[in-house]
Amino acid sequence: MESKIFFLVPAAAIIALGFAYYFFKQMMKESEGTDTMKQIALYVREGAMAYLKQQYKVVFLVFVVITFLFAIMAYVLEIQNPWVPFAFLTGGFFSGLAGFFGMRTATYASARTANAAQRSLNDGLRLAFRSGAVMGLVVVGLGLLDISIWFYALQYVIGALDNTTDALIAANPSMKLIIITTTTLTFGMGASTQALFARVGGGIFTKAADVGADLVGKVEAGIPEDDARNPATIADNVGDNVGDVAGMGADLYESYCGAILSTAALGATAFAGLGYETQLNGVIAPMIIAAVGILLSIVGIFLVKAKEGASQKELLSALGRGVNVSSVLIAIISFFILKYLAIPNYLGIWGAMIVGLAGGIGIGKVTEYFTSAGYRPTQKIAESTKTGPATVIISGIGTGMISTAFPVLIVGASIILAFLFAADFDMSNISFGLYGIAIAAVGMLSTLGITLATDAYGPIADNAGGNAEMSGLGEEVRNRTDALDSLGNTTAATGKGFAIGSAALTALALMAAYMEEIKIAMARIPEKAALFAETMHVDIHQATIPDMMQYFNVTLMNPLVLVGAFIGSMTAFLFSGLTMNAVGRAAQSMVEEVRRQFREIPGILEGTSKPDYARCVEISTKGAQHEMLLPSFLAIAIPILTGILFGVSGVMGLLLGGVSTGFILAIFMANSGGAWDNAKKYIEAGNYGGKGSDSHKAAVTGDTVGDPFKDTSGPSLNILIKLMSMVSIVMAGLTVAWSLF
Amino acid sequence: MESKIFFLVPAAAIIALGFAYYFFKQMMKESEGTDTMKQIALYVREGAMAYLKQQYKVVFLVFVVITFLFAIMAYVLEIQNPWVPFAFLTGGFFSGLAGFFGMRTATYASARTANAAQRSLNDGLRLAFRSGAVMGLVVVGLGLLDISIWFYALQYVIGALDNTTDALIAANPSMKLIIITTTTLTFGMGASTQALFARVGGGIFTKAADVGADLVGKVEAGIPEDDARNPATIADNVGDNVGDVAGMGADLYESYCGAILSTAALGATAFAGLGYETQLNGVIAPMIIAAVGILLSIVGIFLVKAKEGASQKELLSALGRGVNVSSVLIAIISFFILKYLAIPNYLGIWGAMIVGLAGGIGIGKVTEYFTSAGYRPTQKIAESTKTGPATVIISGIGTGMISTAFPVLIVGASIILAFLFAADFDMSNISFGLYGIAIAAVGMLSTLGITLATDAYGPIADNAGGNAEMSGLGEEVRNRTDALDSLGNTTAATGKGFAIGSAALTALALMAAYMEEIKIAMARIPEKAALFAETMHVDIHQATIPDMMQYFNVTLMNPLVLVGAFIGSMTAFLFSGLTMNAVGRAAQSMVEEVRRQFREIPGILEGTSKPDYARCVEISTKGAQHEMLLPSFLAIAIPILTGILFGVSGVMGLLLGGVSTGFILAIFMANSGGAWDNAKKYIEAGNYGGKGSDSHKAAVTGDTVGDPFKDTSGPSLNILIKLMSMVSIVMAGLTVAWSLF
Repeated sequence: MESKIFFLVPAAAIIALGFAYYFFKQMMKESEGTDTMKQIALYVREGAMAYLKQQYKVVFLVFVVITFLFAIMAYVLEIQNPWVPFAFLTGGFFSGLAGFFGMRTATYASARTANAAQRSLNDGLRLAFRSGAVMGLVVVGLGLLDISIWFYALQYVIGALDNTTDALIAANPSMKLIIITTTTLTFGMGASTQALFARVGGGIFTKAADVGADLVGKVEAGIPEDDARNPATIADNVGDNVGDVAGMGADLYESYCGAILSTAALGATAFAGLGYETQLNGVIAPMIIAAVGILLSIVGIFLVKAKEGASQKELLSALGRGVNVSSVLIAIISFFILKYLAIPNYLGIWGAMIVGLAGGIGIGKVTEYFTSAGYRPTQKIAESTKTGPATVIISGIGTGMISTAFPVLIVGASIILAFLFAADFDMSNISFGLYGIAIAAVGMLSTLGITLATDAYGPIADNAGGNAEMSGLGEEVRNRTDALDSLGNTTAATGKGFAIGSAALTALALMAAYMEEIKIAMARIPEKAALFAETMHVDIHQATIPDMMQYFNVTLMNPLVLVGAFIGSMTAFLFSGLTMNAVGRAAQSMVEEVRRQFREIPGILEGTSKPDYARCVEISTKGAQHEMLLPSFLAIAIPILTGILFGVSGVMGLLLGGVSTGFILAIFMANSGGAWDNAKKYIEAGNYGGKGSDSHKAAVTGDTVGDPFKDTSGPSLNILIKLMSMVSIVMAGLTVAWSLF
Repeated sequence: MESKIFFLVPAAAIIALGFAYYFFKQMMKESEGTDTMKQIALYVREGAMAYLKQQYKVVFLVFVVITFLFAIMAYVLEIQNPWVPFAFLTGGFFSGLAGFFGMRTATYASARTANAAQRSLNDGLRLAFRSGAVMGLVVVGLGLLDISIWFYALQYVIGALDNTTDALIAANPSMKLIIITTTTLTFGMGASTQALFARVGGGIFTKAADVGADLVGKVEAGIPEDDARNPATIADNVGDNVGDVAGMGADLYESYCGAILSTAALGATAFAGLGYETQLNGVIAPMIIAAVGILLSIVGIFLVKAKEGASQKELLSALGRGVNVSSVLIAIISFFILKYLAIPNYLGIWGAMIVGLAGGIGIGKVTEYFTSAGYRPTQKIAESTKTGPATVIISGIGTGMISTAFPVLIVGASIILAFLFAADFDMSNISFGLYGIAIAAVGMLSTLGITLATDAYGPIADNAGGNAEMSGLGEEVRNRTDALDSLGNTTAATGKGFAIGSAALTALALMAAYMEEIKIAMARIPEKAALFAETMHVDIHQATIPDMMQYFNVTLMNPLVLVGAFIGSMTAFLFSGLTMNAVGRAAQSMVEEVRRQFREIPGILEGTSKPDYARCVEISTKGAQHEMLLPSFLAIAIPILTGILFGVSGVMGLLLGGVSTGFILAIFMANSGGAWDNAKKYIEAGNYGGKGSDSHKAAVTGDTVGDPFKDTSGPSLNILIKLMSMVSIVMAGLTVAWSLF
């Protein structure tokens, strides 16, 4: 490898992991508080670890099966890059590891945060936030580490396992980086597969527990949230860890890697004709930006602190300060990175990156407007509780649907502007333009180290509140953890906005990578290559993306594209429907179990005997493991079947339909859910009759419906979108070899 | 006009209108029953007419403004076909007329149906069904009449109003039929605009009244449905007429005309090179098939009768008999029509038509499975009422989302098969294939005369039941009208399936028509034509659709296409959100008004004093008129703005995103809503505690949320999809002249 500054990438990864370890050790030094606090934290930790173990078992089996199929494709059928099975495995492994470390930290941090909050708000914030930072840094650290190892190693060994790769590179030397980058994309598929299981499984677990705990505990028995008498309360807290921490960690790990890897793949294509060094620089540019982003995130993390008695607004600005400083610095420094790398049109490409960074902030603001109780939309939903649960649902759904308009306009404008800047305002300069869109996604995620910290800190504060409640700590402590938690709701919604926004920006890059992979797959099969050359009068090795589009007629007048788009849109709905129903079913079992315990175990409600917490954890675990398989299987099977039945143009339609519907459905579900949650909190703060009123009951119904919206189905969609692209890319060989059209 | 059998088209139209008049007269001869019955029918009729008058006033103003803009584009800017303003106006006029006649008939028929049901079930069925048939026949009759008048007249006058049209035809004689058919498509835009207002306005009216009546009357006051003591009950019955009759009439009028006109437009393109006679026959083939379909629908209508004491299944099969006979006959006869017209590959094109016919039936079956209480999905939703309203909503949404998979697979298979059959299994034979897809939509709607009768009869039976309840007719009468009504729920869901299925099938045809219109618009502007010739080395007059796709880069790698698709998908959500919120707001006003009347007018609940029905009608009217403007405005403005901002490829993306998301969102909303409705009925039939139980309350919440899903937002989406295409087609001149890209 000839690049002088590539070393920054693994270095930044290792620094991130070092700081993560440092923050973890610092946190572990704090006291966990009283024996009760320790006991509760232990229950939650054990439940969470037991769940994760079970989940990893299932996922391991799935990975074994898929890897086996990949191996057959690569070594028996010879229609697949032979590195794919290995890359796939490591992607899944590192993604799981990121979730594991993040969750382990979170389960150790919650009691300590509750304890620190006894001293002061600032101590609570620092501890929770730095524990969240462990997760943020582990995700970006492991991500860049995996990327740099693979990228570095493949430089030397890419052709070692087969005979065709070297021949392809000999026919066209610029193919080397193209093949390397599309191979590393496979590790993205591993990460996405792991993330999908983590999000779906964790999402079902947490929401089954949450819905069950709320419906019986809060509504029927009238006991407060997180009350130790509620049998589902430990399961609920476990859920926050496995869903909101481990699930989100795996999710953003795949978003982060996906954005970097797809930009690298586009860099290899866009700069293919400009000499090896330029091509290489185009490929590593997103990695270097990400590396510097990590270092700046660490700087930002140290800037987060709050004064005692700080208002919600001041707390939010304390978090904001860290994020803002990191963002401004990365905006400035990335200009010099791109200039140093001598990327052609570096000014325009820098502009594209800034567009992405700004777009991310814009989506965050819109999300806040539509989901925070400080603004009209959520207040309107709260007002509709006066006429009962039905109007709460209607207005929540209506508002969520309307809210999709603004993120779409922001992302649409970002796509067009990033393309125009990077393509120097020449619409026909497609490969530069697409590179610009992809690097906008990298810009959006460049400060993930700190934005994810603000995200992961939410469930830690939430759990600290739960611990405080169950341990009977004073009112003041609970108020402090509540202040930290409610802040976490806003930052969590923003984090989801980043994940889905970057998925939309990455979509075109992945579609382009798919066409590249189809080209490589055709070049591997002599008769396909010959047919292409005959039809198009272009050698397949020299084919451009427009050539490929023409050959496969990937235009909007091709009925295969339309049918593919229908299937893509439908997949988003089908997947959401399956996960919604999964939560509904698991929650019903939970409701029945909690009712049974209240009925059969005397003295629970009086606090004289202990409920059977473990049984509830078990129900959520079983429900999640059982229910996560079908939707995840469909996410993998549908792109493969579409490829075989409807060919390349069908798959392209599938990806377009999937991203365009999935993106919007995800925003709708996240925002409706967030708004219902905060409308309920708004009523609990004393509006429209406050806690216990009919309005409150109606609001709880809204919040309960919103639970799977915002924490199961909605956030899984961005992974679904990318996983479908990744599967298509990895299965390109199969599509070329076996497709009907 | 040289065709010998074209006379069949206006002839069938006039026969349809004649039979409609005959059925109307027959119905009017029946007695309206007691004075109370007459009085109630009068209230409903007056309320409905008052609403429609108000609605037409608003729509008239909208049409004046749009026509004025069209006139400027045509006569001042000269970027528009000069017949467009006139065609637009007649489309709107006839569409409104169809709704008006249908609704007038329905409001006269309801008391008479209740009265006839006193005699026997069969008498009730016949009367309700034949009154529904008035609507069915008026819709198809007026549709074909308008089509044949315009098509015939334009043969002679197409070039009369400007100088460029004759020049275009002189440059390429096959352009004559292309220009005529794309001009007649404009009348489709008029019909769609009228239909959108009718569906949205009527949908808001009916659901505001329904939700208001249910929430306060049924849930709070505990009085039965349609009880005369409920102030909103007349408004509720008015709503059935203005929403489910007038709204649906206008809706299916535009679906019917849209399918025929877009097939005609594709016929003009597909057969352009094969001589005038073949081209003409390709254009009139869908019209002839529709004409014969009308005659067979009339035959079918006479076959519908039921024995006394018939079970629900027997009643359904009585309706089914009429539809089945018509369908089988049209399937056979259309083969001979296509053969007689000597359409190239007539066998394959006939196959495409059969595919459409079968697809429509398949969608109907799937709809029945997912929404009827006789099957698992709806029973599962009913079961989830045990754990309260939140789980009802979750499982209803989940089931509705899952249900989208099957119609999508049916429509997807129909599209591919129709294309392959018509294109003789040659994927590159695009224009024949597209013609096949379009004619599949014509096949699906060919028996609309009778299928719409089975649809429109539902609200008549519903109103008859309301009248029977309010007039205090015996239990037996109410049971008979209930049997008729609940049948109507299933047929209504099937009717919505046809409307949305045909919209999906028509989508590609309209996109092709858009590209044709862009071509014509470019040919009208010399510098654009010159630029095209220079770039493509093809004269614009001879350009094919693939040439146009290449020139505007309408491929899936164009970011403008992706952004367009995002906007299209978002529009479907935004539109649904606005209409959902509109119903929510109007319903809240209704709830407050009903509560006020119960509070302030003493003796209502005891039945000693009359509620103020008129005030509730007024609230629904005002709410609907006020709330329908913004969503309708957006449906027209968004395609225009997309054209100007993102050009032709942006618009094509918009149409793809709109149809792919809108189609699936519409099915989701229709099926969730239908399933909630029937889950509630299932509980009312005595399951899970029956009426008045907690389960029933939870089910009513589901049904209430489902109301705007299935009767406002959902059914408006198919119109939205087509209106966006129509607006794009009509505004093609503007896009070519002013677009930024």
